[in-house]
Amino acid sequence: MFTSHNEPQPADFADVRATNLAVALRFVRENAPCSRADIAASTGLNKATVSSLVADLIERRLLRETGLTEHRVGRPATMLVLDGSPFAAVGIEVNADYITAVAIDLKGEELLNWRRSFPGGDSTTGQAVAAIAAVARRAVSRMAKEARQVLGLTVAVPGLVEVDGSVRQAADLGWRDADLGGDLTKALRDPGFPVVVDNDANLAALAEHRFGPHRNTANLVYVTGEARVAAGIVLDGRVRRGALGFSGEIGHIPVDPAGPLCRCGRRGCLEAVAGVGAILRRTAPDAASSELELEIDEVVRRAGAGDPEILALLDQAGRDLGRGLAVVANLLDPEVIILGGYYIPLAPWLISRAEEEMRRGIVAPGGGACRLEASALGYGAAALGAAATVLDRVDSGRLPAQPS
Amino acid sequence: MFTSHNEPQPADFADVRATNLAVALRFVRENAPCSRADIAASTGLNKATVSSLVADLIERRLLRETGLTEHRVGRPATMLVLDGSPFAAVGIEVNADYITAVAIDLKGEELLNWRRSFPGGDSTTGQAVAAIAAVARRAVSRMAKEARQVLGLTVAVPGLVEVDGSVRQAADLGWRDADLGGDLTKALRDPGFPVVVDNDANLAALAEHRFGPHRNTANLVYVTGEARVAAGIVLDGRVRRGALGFSGEIGHIPVDPAGPLCRCGRRGCLEAVAGVGAILRRTAPDAASSELELEIDEVVRRAGAGDPEILALLDQAGRDLGRGLAVVANLLDPEVIILGGYYIPLAPWLISRAEEEMRRGIVAPGGGACRLEASALGYGAAALGAAATVLDRVDSGRLPAQPS
Repeated sequence: MFTSHNEPQPADFADVRATNLAVALRFVRENAPCSRADIAASTGLNKATVSSLVADLIERRLLRETGLTEHRVGRPATMLVLDGSPFAAVGIEVNADYITAVAIDLKGEELLNWRRSFPGGDSTTGQAVAAIAAVARRAVSRMAKEARQVLGLTVAVPGLVEVDGSVRQAADLGWRDADLGGDLTKALRDPGFPVVVDNDANLAALAEHRFGPHRNTANLVYVTGEARVAAGIVLDGRVRRGALGFSGEIGHIPVDPAGPLCRCGRRGCLEAVAGVGAILRRTAPDAASSELELEIDEVVRRAGAGDPEILALLDQAGRDLGRGLAVVANLLDPEVIILGGYYIPLAPWLISRAEEEMRRGIVAPGGGACRLEASALGYGAAALGAAATVLDRVDSGRLPAQPS
Repeated sequence: MFTSHNEPQPADFADVRATNLAVALRFVRENAPCSRADIAASTGLNKATVSSLVADLIERRLLRETGLTEHRVGRPATMLVLDGSPFAAVGIEVNADYITAVAIDLKGEELLNWRRSFPGGDSTTGQAVAAIAAVARRAVSRMAKEARQVLGLTVAVPGLVEVDGSVRQAADLGWRDADLGGDLTKALRDPGFPVVVDNDANLAALAEHRFGPHRNTANLVYVTGEARVAAGIVLDGRVRRGALGFSGEIGHIPVDPAGPLCRCGRRGCLEAVAGVGAILRRTAPDAASSELELEIDEVVRRAGAGDPEILALLDQAGRDLGRGLAVVANLLDPEVIILGGYYIPLAPWLISRAEEEMRRGIVAPGGGACRLEASALGYGAAALGAAATVLDRVDSGRLPAQPS
């Protein structure tokens, strides 16, 4: 069957050289080690052009030659791999109870992964900006010690982030209409790299699509497991943000109208019955919102010890989660829905019940294609995805300046 | 902010000529009347190549020169427009109570638009195939009288259609695992053009995106208003079908758990409280499923006359519809949700209440970007979208053979 997204896409010829550099770079990213001839054969660029592009990319230290050669017909070909040793990309996630920072190299390999507790729910925007800036400065300085230049910083925020990066609303942080990108750039004193802000669920979905066990799966949904429940949506291989950047707001899918009051004013929304906050309110009623992780550890300990009250509560939460996710699966028909954040440690007691209930609610015979899994990327998915957007920018042709 | 779908897309060079023909054709589609120089300037193809491509497209009667010329600097340029006079694309929609057929020319202009009643719910698959084939033969023969060759037939089906075109399930038609494409091709005795099957909501969404007042809106959702309630989803300018082609199943979003029993076995699903069938069950309890249109006419007449019972029922249905669509809007953040089918004649009494309720349920401040509107394309949207897929196939480079 014909699918309309296969239509030919004429390149923008405004900057053919930059486009071709990006095409060659992306080819090596996906096919390394590979030769100049491989690039020419697969991209349709002629060999002289490829040689010139590769020379440029080597000079910019984005590619390097390996000792490896490949003998086919004719003379041996020198193989190319990604270099990027003078560069780093930084992602930071801010949340109600912690800040996570990740730095990766051009290949996506992790250079640092920090997590520190942070009372996001009890801080002003100014305190949050100061805390994020402090973590960013430490990360930049660590990278400088490794002789790496930071190419960009992206910050993941749990809330509604417009496509221009302004934070319209982040309830768990108490933010509304905050110019986080601008404030951070100021706090970092014009650091010489772009500071970008995006939604945490979108970024975590991007990380799953790029680095997770389901990488390159065309259609996947990532569900955040923080105080807030939201989704990042990948369809046909790209994060889909919607008109304003507000897609993925699944927290208020009606699940149980006899359920507890939701902060939106209705009863029994997905977040109110199966969000991590809701689970903790029932399993650990005295928990403080800034110590979610400790409380989750305690719930996990009690579940592991077979505490029947905890097991029953998690079973019910799994069921409710599955009912809400069935709505998502029916609407989007993804290959997989991935549960992140604090759902990960709870998964052993949540996920099979949730999947069972989800499949029951899916209209397609046999429950369609959709599986439910816990993220293999751990708590750092959004920060990792944030850093990955910096690589995407390079891959799309905005190359770092040549080293002086 | 960087959005990852802007990454450079190297063309597939397997068939550069076909790709370039398609690029030139699409440029003229979007910019006619235009000159060869315009094509060269915008696509980056050199002038000699463009001349050769245009000569080929004129010979294939896909383009023609107009008498118009444009004087800029230098000599006058002959202007090009789409031709396509020897060709037609046919779309047919089959539903529980009617079959619609639309034929369009290469420019998307309507050549025929037929609608005949058909007891889809009470027919066997064989009877349906025979009825669709009969309509298709009449359309092909009408086109033949106009000296037009049919380039393809696409059939819109209300149900789960796999990406290969087999119908997994179409409850309103009583179909399950039907090879409609294969059966139709046989019934038409290998007609010499592709016969393709797709989901009605996807095709109607495509029609809205291509021909409707919101054409080229990046993110829109079309909601079918037949017995079944389902959605076609356009995000970032393309129909998003999901993993198996089953996206858009919004009929079973829970809306009112105290509501009527749904055919899925639960209570108060969107379809059971606000589907056209549900509305008729309450407003016209004796209605036959094969005469929806007559019954809708009667409801419209009574609503127009101010019948308070009907007005109250439509008001409640609008409210329930809005609650369900809020879930869709929160998940996808589209610019607009378009109500089709029998929602169109009911819109004057449904839509403002539905929009009000939808906005109340949208998480984004101010109800986000999403508007709710009735389709301007009428009952033929799915058939029109079906025919449009044939044009898409041409635009993507699968050109008709040169006339002999």
